[in-house]
Amino acid sequence: MRLRIDLAYDGSAFHGWARQHGLRTVQGDLERALDTVLRATGTSVTVAGRTDTGVHARRQVAHVDIDPDALAAAAGRSPESPEDALVRRLNGVLDQDVRVHAVARAADGFDARFSALWRRYAYRVADQAPAVDPLNRGHVLAWPRALDEVAMNAAAALLVGEHDFAAFCRKREGATTTRTLLDLGWTPDGGLLVADVRADAFCHNMVRALVGCMLSVGEGRHEPEWAHAVLTAGVRDPAVTVVHAHGLTLEEVRYPRDDELAQRAHASRRVRGPL
Amino acid sequence: MRLRIDLAYDGSAFHGWARQHGLRTVQGDLERALDTVLRATGTSVTVAGRTDTGVHARRQVAHVDIDPDALAAAAGRSPESPEDALVRRLNGVLDQDVRVHAVARAADGFDARFSALWRRYAYRVADQAPAVDPLNRGHVLAWPRALDEVAMNAAAALLVGEHDFAAFCRKREGATTTRTLLDLGWTPDGGLLVADVRADAFCHNMVRALVGCMLSVGEGRHEPEWAHAVLTAGVRDPAVTVVHAHGLTLEEVRYPRDDELAQRAHASRRVRGPL
Repeated sequence: MRLRIDLAYDGSAFHGWARQHGLRTVQGDLERALDTVLRATGTSVTVAGRTDTGVHARRQVAHVDIDPDALAAAAGRSPESPEDALVRRLNGVLDQDVRVHAVARAADGFDARFSALWRRYAYRVADQAPAVDPLNRGHVLAWPRALDEVAMNAAAALLVGEHDFAAFCRKREGATTTRTLLDLGWTPDGGLLVADVRADAFCHNMVRALVGCMLSVGEGRHEPEWAHAVLTAGVRDPAVTVVHAHGLTLEEVRYPRDDELAQRAHASRRVRGPL
Repeated sequence: MRLRIDLAYDGSAFHGWARQHGLRTVQGDLERALDTVLRATGTSVTVAGRTDTGVHARRQVAHVDIDPDALAAAAGRSPESPEDALVRRLNGVLDQDVRVHAVARAADGFDARFSALWRRYAYRVADQAPAVDPLNRGHVLAWPRALDEVAMNAAAALLVGEHDFAAFCRKREGATTTRTLLDLGWTPDGGLLVADVRADAFCHNMVRALVGCMLSVGEGRHEPEWAHAVLTAGVRDPAVTVVHAHGLTLEEVRYPRDDELAQRAHASRRVRGPL
């Protein structure tokens, strides 16, 4: 029985999503909580966006395959649905920096990672003193110089589309770095500048390198066209900084209609492989 | 020479605003930073809203009287104005949970505390699982049960106006507990319920007790009319909980036109005394 889990977390105190021996990770905490609540061992969760150390998620999606009897036992005689009881019990076990928002039976063919159509991240920057809000300092980058939103959007426009993003990715042997960047742009929001970054999928460090490139343009160190030159060069450019993780938040993961889930998962697996 | 200081802070790690020996407070940190940057000793700051332990401020206002020569010396040969140089240098000394947004010469008659026309606080509550955002958990109260916004607003309407708020205040000998509550109401905002609370001034614990009263109504433990009964009883009602500090944020302090500052300060001092 496959469950879809919608969750959110503050990445500050985690060594990223992926389970690592001896380090606190979101996957590690969530799997341990599932083991506890379901009285299971070795529960294994699959996620839509494997966030790096320090990266946050507002609407992350994962799936887990469990024994239906374990779910019924965990729910006990609670008047809620077994899924709602699981939400409540998981939140009782998890620390406050991870919250499970919903648990639901997954539709046939649903795979949190491979069924996803796209992921959307936001990167938040405060480039003026009055916009620096200590209450949001955990997920907003304070930038000491003014940024030119128009120039950053001009650079962004040159990066949108299907490209080999090797220049913005940490290379992984045998894996493609071709991605379709569906949206990239900056919008003012309550004194902040927010980058909206949407793609079918991302490779490692990609959003933070894209943002680093645009911030260089935004403070006038490069012309917008430089972004295109970096992209087409196809190799990591040391002038592109990978910006701090803490400004980055996974905001949304979108899936197709239920009857297209399996087909989408099949197509994604062919392109991006088993890893 | 009097300076107006606009600042913001995350109250989580502070024992409130007011300086206390041996405890970390916002006033203590700010005064020490001013002493450091101005090479002064015993700098004393006056604030608009003396927030309690754990309460935050987005737009707090303070004033300080300083030696103009010390300001000029602190600014050095910086191309900025001396006031902007002071902002930059204070932020260099202060921890990240306090940020100075602006420093300006105060208009004649300006007193951060007594010239204020009103203070506005917000209290933020998430009463549904999907609204609980781990990134905002430091300044939003997670409430485990659904709240009835209409009932809370009905209770709020019974509290607005000039009243003796003794029922919602911690009594202080010789001080009036009469205040003018200008606005009180709940608005949905991005999945949260936000109480907007505006008054000429507040007595100790007042906002948190008002919110506690309305939350009791919101979850159906009392009818809205109960709020009015509590108010008119004029004594602390043990059924009114003083809610957690961390959901409360000072959002705004409003001052009159420059030519009315001194007159306003004079009037406030007469009503609320020297303390």
